[in-house]
Amino acid sequence: MKLRVNCNLEYEVSAETTLILNIEAQRNAGQNVVSEEFSAAGNLATETHVVPETGNRYRRMVLPVGAHRLDYRAEIETAPFIGDPGRIAQMPVAELPFEVVAHLSPSRYCQSDKLGRFAWRTFDGIADGHEKVTAICNWIFENVDYLEGSSDASTSAYDTFTLRAGVCRDFAHLGITFARALGIPARFVSAYALDLQPQDFHAVFEAYLGDRWYLFDATRLCPIDGIVRIGVGRDAADTAFASYFGQLNGPPKLISVERIDGPQPAEWTTGAVSISAD
Amino acid sequence: MKLRVNCNLEYEVSAETTLILNIEAQRNAGQNVVSEEFSAAGNLATETHVVPETGNRYRRMVLPVGAHRLDYRAEIETAPFIGDPGRIAQMPVAELPFEVVAHLSPSRYCQSDKLGRFAWRTFDGIADGHEKVTAICNWIFENVDYLEGSSDASTSAYDTFTLRAGVCRDFAHLGITFARALGIPARFVSAYALDLQPQDFHAVFEAYLGDRWYLFDATRLCPIDGIVRIGVGRDAADTAFASYFGQLNGPPKLISVERIDGPQPAEWTTGAVSISAD
Amino acid sequence: MKLRVNCNLEYEVSAETTLILNIEAQRNAGQNVVSEEFSAAGNLATETHVVPETGNRYRRMVLPVGAHRLDYRAEIETAPFIGDPGRIAQMPVAELPFEVVAHLSPSRYCQSDKLGRFAWRTFDGIADGHEKVTAICNWIFENVDYLEGSSDASTSAYDTFTLRAGVCRDFAHLGITFARALGIPARFVSAYALDLQPQDFHAVFEAYLGDRWYLFDATRLCPIDGIVRIGVGRDAADTAFASYFGQLNGPPKLISVERIDGPQPAEWTTGAVSISAD
Amino acid sequence: MKLRVNCNLEYEVSAETTLILNIEAQRNAGQNVVSEEFSAAGNLATETHVVPETGNRYRRMVLPVGAHRLDYRAEIETAPFIGDPGRIAQMPVAELPFEVVAHLSPSRYCQSDKLGRFAWRTFDGIADGHEKVTAICNWIFENVDYLEGSSDASTSAYDTFTLRAGVCRDFAHLGITFARALGIPARFVSAYALDLQPQDFHAVFEAYLGDRWYLFDATRLCPIDGIVRIGVGRDAADTAFASYFGQLNGPPKLISVERIDGPQPAEWTTGAVSISAD
Repeated sequence: MKLRVNCNLEYEVSAETTLILNIEAQRNAGQNVVSEEFSAAGNLATETHVVPETGNRYRRMVLPVGAHRLDYRAEIETAPFIGDPGRIAQMPVAELPFEVVAHLSPSRYCQSDKLGRFAWRTFDGIADGHEKVTAICNWIFENVDYLEGSSDASTSAYDTFTLRAGVCRDFAHLGITFARALGIPARFVSAYALDLQPQDFHAVFEAYLGDRWYLFDATRLCPIDGIVRIGVGRDAADTAFASYFGQLNGPPKLISVERIDGPQPAEWTTGAVSISAD
Repeated sequence: MKLRVNCNLEYEVSAETTLILNIEAQRNAGQNVVSEEFSAAGNLATETHVVPETGNRYRRMVLPVGAHRLDYRAEIETAPFIGDPGRIAQMPVAELPFEVVAHLSPSRYCQSDKLGRFAWRTFDGIADGHEKVTAICNWIFENVDYLEGSSDASTSAYDTFTLRAGVCRDFAHLGITFARALGIPARFVSAYALDLQPQDFHAVFEAYLGDRWYLFDATRLCPIDGIVRIGVGRDAADTAFASYFGQLNGPPKLISVERIDGPQPAEWTTGAVSISAD
Repeated sequence: MKLRVNCNLEYEVSAETTLILNIEAQRNAGQNVVSEEFSAAGNLATETHVVPETGNRYRRMVLPVGAHRLDYRAEIETAPFIGDPGRIAQMPVAELPFEVVAHLSPSRYCQSDKLGRFAWRTFDGIADGHEKVTAICNWIFENVDYLEGSSDASTSAYDTFTLRAGVCRDFAHLGITFARALGIPARFVSAYALDLQPQDFHAVFEAYLGDRWYLFDATRLCPIDGIVRIGVGRDAADTAFASYFGQLNGPPKLISVERIDGPQPAEWTTGAVSISAD
Repeated sequence: MKLRVNCNLEYEVSAETTLILNIEAQRNAGQNVVSEEFSAAGNLATETHVVPETGNRYRRMVLPVGAHRLDYRAEIETAPFIGDPGRIAQMPVAELPFEVVAHLSPSRYCQSDKLGRFAWRTFDGIADGHEKVTAICNWIFENVDYLEGSSDASTSAYDTFTLRAGVCRDFAHLGITFARALGIPARFVSAYALDLQPQDFHAVFEAYLGDRWYLFDATRLCPIDGIVRIGVGRDAADTAFASYFGQLNGPPKLISVERIDGPQPAEWTTGAVSISAD
């Protein structure tokens, strides 16, 4: 699928501020960045870094006092690997790549150590592999209300599990938490997403099954093959689209994602989708 | 300093168990492993992995049902970098190496997003750089009781801050949390430690100051230059000495650490100590 | 049912301690105390108080340094009101006695404000009145493991809901929490209980339905008509069997409850049981 | 002091709603209600109840769908007991009235069981009796930011202690928590308050010292003898000014409190103030 992505950020800076953005699309075998352009009004100098282990792309800059406008636009062609959900098995820990094992540990927003008993009671018997993570997503969709304003930056999976309401980031955190509790490595993915209403950044998760990372989205808000990966990490603490150290304000970010090689809205894929190169 | 380390683990396994150990000393410029030996009774096959970014050494094995005994012994020569505490400054975020920035984020046991207001009120004015982290350690030592049994595997810095009691791991988590809240990258270090009573694994933390990671130990239980690094990570979730997937039991681990090139107990260093190569 | 109750407490006091006991059986229309005796070795002076609103009986004493032995024995005849579960309806808040309304509020261990969304999703449609609270008890029994040692004095319903393990006090807290979240007044009951294994104090809860308080026990550990009420309150914070202010230690309390007018174990009542006079 | 109080509430009800108000001033020896009037537009029937143990006054009504306007106006003359702070001692638990002892227990928003270690470390040595509770208030004032919007209905003292920000209700909860942890009975007071900016309901707390309940206000927002008590209870869970069961919305309540027998702003009393009759 070929997608055009736009992201516009505006800031009013009241004291010199260091800003680190993670809004540029990953480049990997599953996701080709055909063209892209980052621009900052006023010829602001920026410094970039690609994390070798994840492909996350960071851009750091020092914003002087005043108004700033930052734009990212890109054309991305995704070439997802599509698997057969019924044949993708969970790997025993003894056979997982060592790099992947760390994604079994609890993290800031995903206290898999606390929700293990529930996860085992609920999901242990009902399926295996890709189907088990799909069962997790179904459970979340059926038991948690998607409700704007019901959570904030400190809300974790532990809270969402009891409060039963959240937004995309909370849905992803809860999915990650259950997967890890069941011995399935899982990580957070910040993304651009086709057909998301209203248009915004999106959050989904990946679980490591068979020999790769598969995408999952418990919100059912957009087609899973319309996802463009920006950042991957343990949870939202690792994958903020913008981190700043200073003082700034701004209007809401403007995001647009459109398909440029086929119909919108997209038809929804029913297979297992992976756009991770690792 | 030259140290001899022994670690003996015994397990009674009641169902086949995958065990991942992280008990072997890191090898880096600040810490030379002169000799070492890992042995598992019964010629058990083990698989090893060194994480490129951290130097953490993992050993994975599948334990069949029955009794198992695992031993690690090593001679390590530490060559710490000793700095002048008064001259080691905090780096602005704009100048931090990108790899280090991730250690500003909150993690499972270190909710720096929740304790920021306290940290700023308490530590903002009183010092800078190495001295600020020392002030954090002093505050912890003076305000938190070291009390065996007062915490468990789910205790986080948020709990320790209110309950005001904990063990070495809790002291490290709280130090990391305050440092991150103040914009100082910090990470957890699992360690062998000289003169620790009773002998056991130890937990301390590192803060990134100037151009390297410096060791800090808010417990004041052992000399900071008697630390041998085993694992580094976001917090204890990343640095368990043993993770298992299966069913096992065992008597307490036996640890011994002794100095073989000088007097015990050691004289305590008063400078800033770094044994990190990065 | 006629029951003989024994309770023996021993304390080793290391600094003068004020002790407040709440171990004596309530006297009310549903529960007649035929005979009873409280004795404290050494002619210790004690002061008693009956709370008018609840019938809770407190006994306060100052224990000097040394060894102490306190005994309570009683014969109690319960005359429970037995209702027809299918005909006991939930009262609208507009018709509840004002005294009862306070039992809709959240309390220390029963955060009904946080578990409301789950309670409505799960229990709203499935039954009404006494049957709804029975459905709550069934859900708890089926979804929470009864596990000695899995909780402590700070464990609340919020924790039990996520951790999915607890003891009788946790089961009662969770039942109270769900009931309140659904608009049903509920309170904690500390009790002597027939056929409880091992013999100990017990904790159950009461919900206000129709025109009285009905007993519920989500643990299914003993017959509901073998309950002798000691204290009622918002939750365990109100109904400790012993509160002390000083320093004391002691071996485990010894409790025995036996039926003296019929067979043990008792046959289990299937109706709705109330032993509350209010 | 003679005060005129106005309280105006407006509601838009979208489904029949039971409303319970607790907005009418207590009548007791310390606080004489000279005149008062409650009115509900449309001749709505209301039912009232005075709780014997506390003097809290509740008014219950069923609001049909539509717009509603409720008004309460009163003239109150306070006759506070003014003590000498240096001579008001903490009572040993052995001598407290039994009715008061319950106010040593933790409650929904005041987890005194969790903050005990801190309270003892911080306040144990520094003063006694009324002065100790004043020291608690000073600590709160100096260490917690008064910040509108920093807390919500689920925020408890445990949260406020770590987050270090809150509003009047949070300040009261934290004061109650520390007092209870130190063995001083304490309770929540909802109130009308003179000179509060902006005018609104207020929350303060009372501690039982000597032989009565004394008022404390850690916010320093208004003179302590300008307080008119509405409700007392364990914490805010017991003393909501309005509880509803149904669906309603409304603009912000309008409150006014003015002194009608002397200057505004009032001079601040420096003694210990009690307006409780018990």
